[in-house]
Amino acid sequence: MIIVMKPSATEGEIADVVERLTAESARVQRLDGERVTLTAGGGATGGATGGPTGRGHIDTMPGVDAVLPDGAGTPMVAPREPAIPASEVRGFEVRGRWIGGDEMFIAAGPCSVEDPATMHGIAEAVAGAGATALRAGAYKPRTSPYSFQGMGEEGLAIARDAADAHELLLVSEVVDAIQIPVAARYVDILQVGARNMANTSLLRELGRARRPVLLKRGLAATIDEWLGAAEYLVSAGNPHIILCERGIRTFETATRNTLDLNAVPVVRGRSHLPIVVDPSHGTGRRDCVQAMARAATAAGADGLLIEVHVDPDNAISDAAQTITPETFRRITRDVRAIREALA
Amino acid sequence: MIIVMKPSATEGEIADVVERLTAESARVQRLDGERVTLTAGGGATGGATGGPTGRGHIDTMPGVDAVLPDGAGTPMVAPREPAIPASEVRGFEVRGRWIGGDEMFIAAGPCSVEDPATMHGIAEAVAGAGATALRAGAYKPRTSPYSFQGMGEEGLAIARDAADAHELLLVSEVVDAIQIPVAARYVDILQVGARNMANTSLLRELGRARRPVLLKRGLAATIDEWLGAAEYLVSAGNPHIILCERGIRTFETATRNTLDLNAVPVVRGRSHLPIVVDPSHGTGRRDCVQAMARAATAAGADGLLIEVHVDPDNAISDAAQTITPETFRRITRDVRAIREALA
Amino acid sequence: MIIVMKPSATEGEIADVVERLTAESARVQRLDGERVTLTAGGGATGGATGGPTGRGHIDTMPGVDAVLPDGAGTPMVAPREPAIPASEVRGFEVRGRWIGGDEMFIAAGPCSVEDPATMHGIAEAVAGAGATALRAGAYKPRTSPYSFQGMGEEGLAIARDAADAHELLLVSEVVDAIQIPVAARYVDILQVGARNMANTSLLRELGRARRPVLLKRGLAATIDEWLGAAEYLVSAGNPHIILCERGIRTFETATRNTLDLNAVPVVRGRSHLPIVVDPSHGTGRRDCVQAMARAATAAGADGLLIEVHVDPDNAISDAAQTITPETFRRITRDVRAIREALA
Amino acid sequence: MIIVMKPSATEGEIADVVERLTAESARVQRLDGERVTLTAGGGATGGATGGPTGRGHIDTMPGVDAVLPDGAGTPMVAPREPAIPASEVRGFEVRGRWIGGDEMFIAAGPCSVEDPATMHGIAEAVAGAGATALRAGAYKPRTSPYSFQGMGEEGLAIARDAADAHELLLVSEVVDAIQIPVAARYVDILQVGARNMANTSLLRELGRARRPVLLKRGLAATIDEWLGAAEYLVSAGNPHIILCERGIRTFETATRNTLDLNAVPVVRGRSHLPIVVDPSHGTGRRDCVQAMARAATAAGADGLLIEVHVDPDNAISDAAQTITPETFRRITRDVRAIREALA
Repeated sequence: MIIVMKPSATEGEIADVVERLTAESARVQRLDGERVTLTAGGGATGGATGGPTGRGHIDTMPGVDAVLPDGAGTPMVAPREPAIPASEVRGFEVRGRWIGGDEMFIAAGPCSVEDPATMHGIAEAVAGAGATALRAGAYKPRTSPYSFQGMGEEGLAIARDAADAHELLLVSEVVDAIQIPVAARYVDILQVGARNMANTSLLRELGRARRPVLLKRGLAATIDEWLGAAEYLVSAGNPHIILCERGIRTFETATRNTLDLNAVPVVRGRSHLPIVVDPSHGTGRRDCVQAMARAATAAGADGLLIEVHVDPDNAISDAAQTITPETFRRITRDVRAIREALA
Repeated sequence: MIIVMKPSATEGEIADVVERLTAESARVQRLDGERVTLTAGGGATGGATGGPTGRGHIDTMPGVDAVLPDGAGTPMVAPREPAIPASEVRGFEVRGRWIGGDEMFIAAGPCSVEDPATMHGIAEAVAGAGATALRAGAYKPRTSPYSFQGMGEEGLAIARDAADAHELLLVSEVVDAIQIPVAARYVDILQVGARNMANTSLLRELGRARRPVLLKRGLAATIDEWLGAAEYLVSAGNPHIILCERGIRTFETATRNTLDLNAVPVVRGRSHLPIVVDPSHGTGRRDCVQAMARAATAAGADGLLIEVHVDPDNAISDAAQTITPETFRRITRDVRAIREALA
Repeated sequence: MIIVMKPSATEGEIADVVERLTAESARVQRLDGERVTLTAGGGATGGATGGPTGRGHIDTMPGVDAVLPDGAGTPMVAPREPAIPASEVRGFEVRGRWIGGDEMFIAAGPCSVEDPATMHGIAEAVAGAGATALRAGAYKPRTSPYSFQGMGEEGLAIARDAADAHELLLVSEVVDAIQIPVAARYVDILQVGARNMANTSLLRELGRARRPVLLKRGLAATIDEWLGAAEYLVSAGNPHIILCERGIRTFETATRNTLDLNAVPVVRGRSHLPIVVDPSHGTGRRDCVQAMARAATAAGADGLLIEVHVDPDNAISDAAQTITPETFRRITRDVRAIREALA
Repeated sequence: MIIVMKPSATEGEIADVVERLTAESARVQRLDGERVTLTAGGGATGGATGGPTGRGHIDTMPGVDAVLPDGAGTPMVAPREPAIPASEVRGFEVRGRWIGGDEMFIAAGPCSVEDPATMHGIAEAVAGAGATALRAGAYKPRTSPYSFQGMGEEGLAIARDAADAHELLLVSEVVDAIQIPVAARYVDILQVGARNMANTSLLRELGRARRPVLLKRGLAATIDEWLGAAEYLVSAGNPHIILCERGIRTFETATRNTLDLNAVPVVRGRSHLPIVVDPSHGTGRRDCVQAMARAATAAGADGLLIEVHVDPDNAISDAAQTITPETFRRITRDVRAIREALA
């Protein structure tokens, strides 16, 4: 059973509900987000001991807004849970740019931050082509401990300078909760990478952060599990979440991943959160990025995340999937044309 | 080693090459397509005994056009094998409609042929909305022997009548070589279903048929294997092949299959054959068909294959993924708009 | 609805049931196996028009043994469908050898038949090491039309001679119904390859053949679909089916396939048919075959299918996964030891 | 380039190498494990700028033991890297029990710690049946934030008491680096769950911990990536790693995961680290655990991880895959029998 308290609920009212629940079930958990949420019994996907607590005992108590059954899924990210009125407007604002609305959110840049000159060159090029944000990694999760792990805070500072010089938002990944306060000084949107989608500790900390989060889908995560990860963030207090489809792992070897654009309409039916698509990781091939950026736009994505470098062949990482500013310019032109055609 | 003979090669020239090859290798195979192709040694993906036959022995013999090494892949479907000049123009004509060119090829209709009245109603609706072809199954490959296996020749006759009444081409599946002569009396484009993509006996017989073939990708076929299946058809003499991406099998359960739109740009880079997309099987969900039809068009597909029924809830099969004529009409409008926007 | 007639049902009784069903539903199908089976309405996994026919109308009619609902799955291969008493004993006899009982069924030999001398050498070696049967392919389903497609009937004759000389059963694949009468003159157990598991035309013809069938699991077939394919064979009249797990297709590239030994206990719980395992295709690596043959035996498999060659490096096909007679001898020793240890 | 310093290398020698590398490449990283490892250029899987640094410049410098090229993979976990002599003996000791040797390491217990009485009952039962270790989760990574997240330190204390009372080692999962010092007070072997296999921050912290680590394979991790995760642990200074195969995610829905026993011989060929198997998560079905425990043993696993509860139907989590002590006793008997048979 999941009990959603009213925003106006007092600590006394919360304590009364906890007491009632504790009297009936051994396990009560409290989540402090925009509202307080209490779970009792096995919770959403719990075991056999859901317990005998009837909803009738709880839903008339002062301060209680809604009582949802175990298995209620992801009520905080759902489009319109009857008991929890969704906001009227889809999306949210980040420093003057609305994400999830009429304008596409387009983040572009290198896989990893390199030197300042390269970074500025890339920022200038993508800003000129119509990007909303700069993407650049300073903390890199790599398969091998011997691979380049990123420039850390030094990289964040370089990227921030480049973004500011060209009026771009900055998106960058954190791989550890300890990096959040540092990254939050430089970054507008904190990214959770595919390898960390199910890192619930990191999710909970980001749920308490005062920064929007771009949440990539895990390599083998179902859409259910991905929305579950978003629910961790929202239930912990952070409503500003962007979902990012970046390809899933399949048997096909012609591409690095299989970009699952089916996820776009499925997620739009099941969540009010904006969804963007990363055709760079989703294909792993330069020669496929433009086609899939077009496809993602037509499928209804709210934005794109694309790896761009002024000299792709010499990018430190992900060279095979990184495109030139010229190709990126063609993509932003396509995106506008498709959006207008389908308006 | 693969030896491609000239179109003008005489039987005597072919016999000379076979004799030379036989003298040097135990295994020589002959494929009679538009050109005769001979393979010697292990062939394209053979074992260890590729043999010592040097290309120099063969490529100067009369009637020989090209000698390709083992592992040459799919030369007949490739865009432009140096030794085998591709046709100047992409695509081909079927009864006055060009497939693979400026106009999208859109086949629409029910999963299975039902009664004549229903069939005519559907044909009228999809023709009015701009379909190129009617699709309707008379021989159904089903997982269970107790499921409805289709109406057979009676169904083909019903579908042919409906297609003719509304000036539509007819696409329908065969699941056995024995059905080819019967189906060829009614059907303009013979379909190979996903479950039969690797049925090499069926492919070879269709390679000898005088009808274009729509070749669906297998549920777990790599793009390489799919092009290999097309190579069976082309090397056996049938150059009129349409490839159809229809979703692959992955761990995701929110959709019936994962539509792999990456395949569109990958195939366009590796083959001159037209490629169409089936968003009905590719998603298995009515609420996703329109979004993925848009996405497929934007990705560069040459056409669409869509399940449409005047009363989807009461379709005999595939009800969950079948859309109404009204939704289909919105899709054809979208397709035109996207094509124009990207022209 | 699936109606299973009694073995003793007369044609008149069958006709009466068909008449009753036809009066109530447009689609009635008849399958002639060991018993006659009738399906009405959508069948096991049919569409929306399952129809109003009540079971009560049918199950008291003369000659009717059982009436099963749509979705009844695979009653003919099930362990013990209440209405269809299973045979007391698991397995069946093939020319004096019991398959599915106390003795492991071990088929070994080359991927493809080669020359008579090599074939005899292999047969002698595997017979000496304790094999039950010789496996050798004469009709090969290959990804490329330019690859060696097998020796055909000549290969079958060579393999038969070798098997007879060493008192082995012979297992060999057919890829087309047209090959069945030829193959049946030479082969004791006809194999359906992974690529043809869903070739329902081939399955139906093999269901009418008077030869046991070894049915490999498809590359991406669920266990449900695999049992459905077996149901095609059994419902068409052939009760002598051996299931063969041979690995499924996953994202892992260290091995050719992922051998799904989970399938062994799952199938044993859902079917009375014997199940054997192919660790050669299931791993694609010589250095893994012995370990996985041990594992399959311990998991409860009724037998093994293993690629063995006197000179694996020079095998025409599948060289990378083919083992020597010496390794094979160690495997048969392991199999006996594990069986005894768990007896 | 990866430079492995000698165990005896001085800080001065290390500094000299770093200086030389820095002069030639912008990116130098240092890993402090049992030996110091330096990487320069792109590292193992870096980008285009591997750099011109020749091995000849480095490998004769004082204190350098080996210089490995980029792409050298996982030298620390490899069986016998020429330049890094492996220990003579496979495995290691944990509080008097040798893991990776003649005796199987068998960890058994509930998914989650529950109350003390239940915990003691389970510990008594599994100890009596021959378990080496108790497994029990106190920090649970769950798909939904509303699911039970574990008892935390209170749970660890309960589990420790139960383990001590029955002379069992204790295995328990950590999901956040912050839990390591707490968990290390109670737990003998720290577990990394499948969802955190690629959480490189957690891996690095565990690499510095003074506790052996059981590293589960990620849901969609290749064997390469799994060994890469182990390399993170070993290169950070912790040589006591146990790998745990627990099933991968595939299209099959009859089982929760597909247990990939192929991984056992593949890993044994590529690493000196012990490998154990979890047939509970690997199948998700009680009726398959015994068969797959047998199979894992026969495949060559060094141990098993099994969910056991005195009242499986009322286990808080993973009820469907949890077995009784009686079934567990049969498994330990089987394991002994198979080990002896194959000795």
